[in-house]
Amino acid sequence: MRRLVDPRSVAVVGVSERANAFGSRTVANLKDFDGRLYQINARHADLAGRPCYPDLASLPEVPDCVVIATPRDAVETVVRDCAARSVGAVLVLAAGFAETAKPENVALQQRLVEIARGADLRLVGPNTLGLVNYATGAGLTFSGMPVRRPLAPHAIGIVSQSGSLGFSLAQGVERGVSVSHVLTAGNSCDVDVADHVAYLARDPQCRAIACLFEGMADPTRMLKAAEIAWEADKPLVLYKIATGREGARAALSHTGSLAGSQEAYRAGFARAGVVQVDTLEALVETTVFFAKAGRPRARGVAVIATSGGATIIAADKAELHGVPLPQPGPEAASVLAAEVPEYGSTRNPCDVTAQVIGSADSLAACTGALLADPLYGIMVTSHAYAYESATVRLPVFSRAAAANHKLVCNVWAPEWLGGPGSRETETDPHLALFHSMDRCFAAIKAWHRRDDLRRIGRDGAARISDPAAAARLAALLAETSGTSLTEREAKRAMALYGIPVVEDHPVATAAAARAAAEAIGFPVVLKGESPDVLHKTEAGLVKLNLGSGMEVERAFQEIIAAFDAMASRPAVRGVVVQPMIARGVEVMVGARHDPQFGPLVVVGLGGVLVEVLRDTALSLAPVGRGEAEAMLRGLKGAALLDGFRGAPRVEVATLAEIVCRFSELAADAGERITEMEINPLICSGRRIVAADALIVKGGTHG
Amino acid sequence: MRRLVDPRSVAVVGVSERANAFGSRTVANLKDFDGRLYQINARHADLAGRPCYPDLASLPEVPDCVVIATPRDAVETVVRDCAARSVGAVLVLAAGFAETAKPENVALQQRLVEIARGADLRLVGPNTLGLVNYATGAGLTFSGMPVRRPLAPHAIGIVSQSGSLGFSLAQGVERGVSVSHVLTAGNSCDVDVADHVAYLARDPQCRAIACLFEGMADPTRMLKAAEIAWEADKPLVLYKIATGREGARAALSHTGSLAGSQEAYRAGFARAGVVQVDTLEALVETTVFFAKAGRPRARGVAVIATSGGATIIAADKAELHGVPLPQPGPEAASVLAAEVPEYGSTRNPCDVTAQVIGSADSLAACTGALLADPLYGIMVTSHAYAYESATVRLPVFSRAAAANHKLVCNVWAPEWLGGPGSRETETDPHLALFHSMDRCFAAIKAWHRRDDLRRIGRDGAARISDPAAAARLAALLAETSGTSLTEREAKRAMALYGIPVVEDHPVATAAAARAAAEAIGFPVVLKGESPDVLHKTEAGLVKLNLGSGMEVERAFQEIIAAFDAMASRPAVRGVVVQPMIARGVEVMVGARHDPQFGPLVVVGLGGVLVEVLRDTALSLAPVGRGEAEAMLRGLKGAALLDGFRGAPRVEVATLAEIVCRFSELAADAGERITEMEINPLICSGRRIVAADALIVKGGTHG
Repeated sequence: MRRLVDPRSVAVVGVSERANAFGSRTVANLKDFDGRLYQINARHADLAGRPCYPDLASLPEVPDCVVIATPRDAVETVVRDCAARSVGAVLVLAAGFAETAKPENVALQQRLVEIARGADLRLVGPNTLGLVNYATGAGLTFSGMPVRRPLAPHAIGIVSQSGSLGFSLAQGVERGVSVSHVLTAGNSCDVDVADHVAYLARDPQCRAIACLFEGMADPTRMLKAAEIAWEADKPLVLYKIATGREGARAALSHTGSLAGSQEAYRAGFARAGVVQVDTLEALVETTVFFAKAGRPRARGVAVIATSGGATIIAADKAELHGVPLPQPGPEAASVLAAEVPEYGSTRNPCDVTAQVIGSADSLAACTGALLADPLYGIMVTSHAYAYESATVRLPVFSRAAAANHKLVCNVWAPEWLGGPGSRETETDPHLALFHSMDRCFAAIKAWHRRDDLRRIGRDGAARISDPAAAARLAALLAETSGTSLTEREAKRAMALYGIPVVEDHPVATAAAARAAAEAIGFPVVLKGESPDVLHKTEAGLVKLNLGSGMEVERAFQEIIAAFDAMASRPAVRGVVVQPMIARGVEVMVGARHDPQFGPLVVVGLGGVLVEVLRDTALSLAPVGRGEAEAMLRGLKGAALLDGFRGAPRVEVATLAEIVCRFSELAADAGERITEMEINPLICSGRRIVAADALIVKGGTHG
Repeated sequence: MRRLVDPRSVAVVGVSERANAFGSRTVANLKDFDGRLYQINARHADLAGRPCYPDLASLPEVPDCVVIATPRDAVETVVRDCAARSVGAVLVLAAGFAETAKPENVALQQRLVEIARGADLRLVGPNTLGLVNYATGAGLTFSGMPVRRPLAPHAIGIVSQSGSLGFSLAQGVERGVSVSHVLTAGNSCDVDVADHVAYLARDPQCRAIACLFEGMADPTRMLKAAEIAWEADKPLVLYKIATGREGARAALSHTGSLAGSQEAYRAGFARAGVVQVDTLEALVETTVFFAKAGRPRARGVAVIATSGGATIIAADKAELHGVPLPQPGPEAASVLAAEVPEYGSTRNPCDVTAQVIGSADSLAACTGALLADPLYGIMVTSHAYAYESATVRLPVFSRAAAANHKLVCNVWAPEWLGGPGSRETETDPHLALFHSMDRCFAAIKAWHRRDDLRRIGRDGAARISDPAAAARLAALLAETSGTSLTEREAKRAMALYGIPVVEDHPVATAAAARAAAEAIGFPVVLKGESPDVLHKTEAGLVKLNLGSGMEVERAFQEIIAAFDAMASRPAVRGVVVQPMIARGVEVMVGARHDPQFGPLVVVGLGGVLVEVLRDTALSLAPVGRGEAEAMLRGLKGAALLDGFRGAPRVEVATLAEIVCRFSELAADAGERITEMEINPLICSGRRIVAADALIVKGGTHG
């Protein structure tokens, strides 16, 4: 990847006399390149004032990187030539490969991959706009690229599956954003966004990474790249697109990548410390914020503005995102009291009034006092007008921020988006620029969350369950026939992992059922057992809350009758008697094996309503205790766990441990279990019992 | 208001020799004023090259409007003088009045109000930045106002409680937005944002209104202004701030306005056809869209872009907002097939590729074909780069849009926010500019919704309940003592309005209870009745699902024992026997009397979970059938009404009618009922019965 992203020598194949052709435009984009540039054209001795070489063989060196600007049908020959000569990387600009979904074009792309893989040659594209390294001036692109400027310490790298959106984001340089790289991937047949992210994670020129991501056939590659960025302490801000059904379809026709399960991506990225945004306009802004912000030194946010309206919006958005706006400590409070006139407000968020903001001394006093207050880790201010900000305010904010090693976020309220002061704010390392109060507080919240993850540490995969359970599970799965396990078998599997399950007593006759019930104690539950009936309740095979021997006998007969009435002739494994579990909060725990992500675990509050309201949390299995607890706490209905309306509260730590064990089962089983569910898991205090269980084996369902 | 917003003559009192003082800055802002301008200063014969008059009496006419730029303590005298001379309106720029919350300053402001009201003088402020009428050049403000430009037919008016944010939004003129007025309100002691909105609703210079609104003591004023805008067919786009607890507190300290219940505002504004946005950055963008958009001629949206990534984002956001992206009809499809190369996509959203966008002819063919397709009411396109858009694309889009009387929304993807092409897009009447794909589709959805409201009509308040019910309700409320009604009394009240309630049989002994149960048929419910116990279940006064005479007798004794055990000694009104209602979907219908909005009605799906999940819909009472049905359909759990998991579906029209009747009860009762609730209303098909009822009388609770 170094020879691709940071080449010392570049050759462009397919340069022509037409200034507007891909090759000529690429050469033009390399005019500031620090390395050695070669043009290859067999029919010209020179073009655009530079010598041409007839072919790769005649170059004075083997170039690190070759940009192939020829038409599609000439690409394969050039790639073979590069592979044969140990070129490091090629970029294929031409379109008309797999993205057309035509078999011959797909096959051609596949041949390029094979040639490259066989020769340790990295290949970008085809159908790519290429990439730019602003540190060296390597503009390996035919796109009209933003001109090279000196890099700031807070330069961001931009990675995008979509070439044109990548370069579109890079146009931020025109308003003062410092960009170290724009790396796009096109059809991603070899090099993809995961490679780019992993590369930038290690590149010191790039302080934070903005990534526009559609999806990929193997999303774990992207999760690994995110891990590399996390380990390198390089913030990765990511906008995952193709989130809906239609978006995913558009993605399919675009780069041939698969859009994976959104929730699984979210969970995987969250675990890897990725900052996730939901709009294109948040991407660069948030990344620059992280590039400038360092680590939070305190969680409180100080807000100052000259507009009461702006302070209200700040309070609204802080509350929406759960960011604290504590009141200033005594020292800062006394400075504010001395400086702010009576028609302003010294309460945070502070309306310091135009009188303070118009006086550099007064503003410096207020800003300095707030930023020096140990309660505050950052300041947010709102600019009302573009006319005068730069002259008075910005230097004051910048100096106070630098002196206190804290950032000042400047929310740009004027509709004059590029007005005076905006560029000065963007280029200042101590000032962050947002075009939205909402996005500003969302970024601050993400900054806090990332710090939590860093400080508290992420859950290790310290296994809770019996290590021997995996082998026993394998044996159990192997010995059961059919597509799914009976409830009894499923409960046996779960019991291997230490999950408490309701006891059951198989019975063959009504009299035996009555006897078992009397032994257990009333009330009891009777269930008909069959691996072929997944939804027993709907089939009339579950009889709850039976209070007497007579009721038990009648229920037994009814279950037998229900079996007899089924047209599908399910395999009958008998009837079991279970104690009726006392009421409690009903929780659902499920898992499914995703072809892209592997085993996923999901929790939700049980009952019919929740299925309708979709109040669930999902993660990649296995999950650690902390993550399981966070999943449970994140449910909208989490208040039910705390003893809602006088009901006993649920011991969440115990419940979380059961979720961990369940997730370890799912992880051990891998694709041998397609779907698995406990519904309900009945919880009351520390007494948590699986009242039902379902396991569908791999390759047999969905 | 005409003499304020559209004055023919203006006097500025308090002009001084200091160029930076309020008065001088206001005079400078009036340099392009079409009307007559007078400066008043007793100590100078002229200032800044204009004559000064010593006082109001010496002016050659009574001015329509006087801007009072004096310090606070001189204001009262000037206002008295203006009132005495029949000036139309005054603006008080000085701060230091009610916003300081100091009694003497509050009293001073109150005196100004009394003087103005006594003389038919309208007063803006105090503590106001004032207002600007761009049509006449009346810059009645000391703010650095954006310079006057000719108004476009799609000019928007800006109304803001916050002066500085109002002028901040008006800086959009610097990037091409056409603004007809900026009207701010400051302390709003007389003229407030409702007055401003109502004025602009009738002003032909303003095609749509952008309103930044904090709240007001009497929010029905704002709802009335919204109605006026609706009647005038003038789109009103509103950003309501102070939505959270902290925001509301900041609002209190800012302009002394009360932040009302957010949900009530939302419901009231939605009914009045107001387009509501949730961020400052959406406000101007969305308003300009409405100013340019006219009415939708079809609901489909055509999307074209040259970036696959942009088409994916469009598909994501369209799906998120529920906006349809139908496939083109045969004619448009054949044009696309002929123009778009194989590596693009002719499916909507269409990736027409750089080849099409680079050719004016090809782009014109595709754009024209899509805009001519009767399936499409609007087109959305995404601009990747700021460099070249203006030269090729924009004229093509504009011509095609004009020819088909449809708008093209241009989503500005480049981070170069004010780059080439942005101003041309903003100023073109056939092109709308968005800086966010998300906000673009949110605006289109709001455009569709507003059209629905216009076409289908809003519910009249055609009363469903018996007109005589109001008088009978009044009598019932008068005859009941205590703070709340018993369940039986509450059900009687609801029955007056035609709400089906469960029958009940009061009984005095266990034997009578058994006899009543046998007459009704098992299973039955027993309830202890007391107006002093609001939560009967928690108190052990409700016994459900009693299946035999023995169970009924035991339950009776238990209820009596529960009463006896209560330390609070509640008034006991006996025990009632009710039939046990068969299972169904449980719905909650409630009402409360809000001090600002009057009676509000709320619906939710019943049960414990829903209270935790807060899945409810609220509106102002009374509601019409359509609105009630929309409230029910808008619940997240609405699928439960359609027969979830084999349960019988609920006849939503019947349920909606009951909600209407309930809301009419609430409206009739007004403040005599503080809170009222049916929970549960048990619904199965058309059989819908209130199984419980609660009414708390006014002045006695909460």
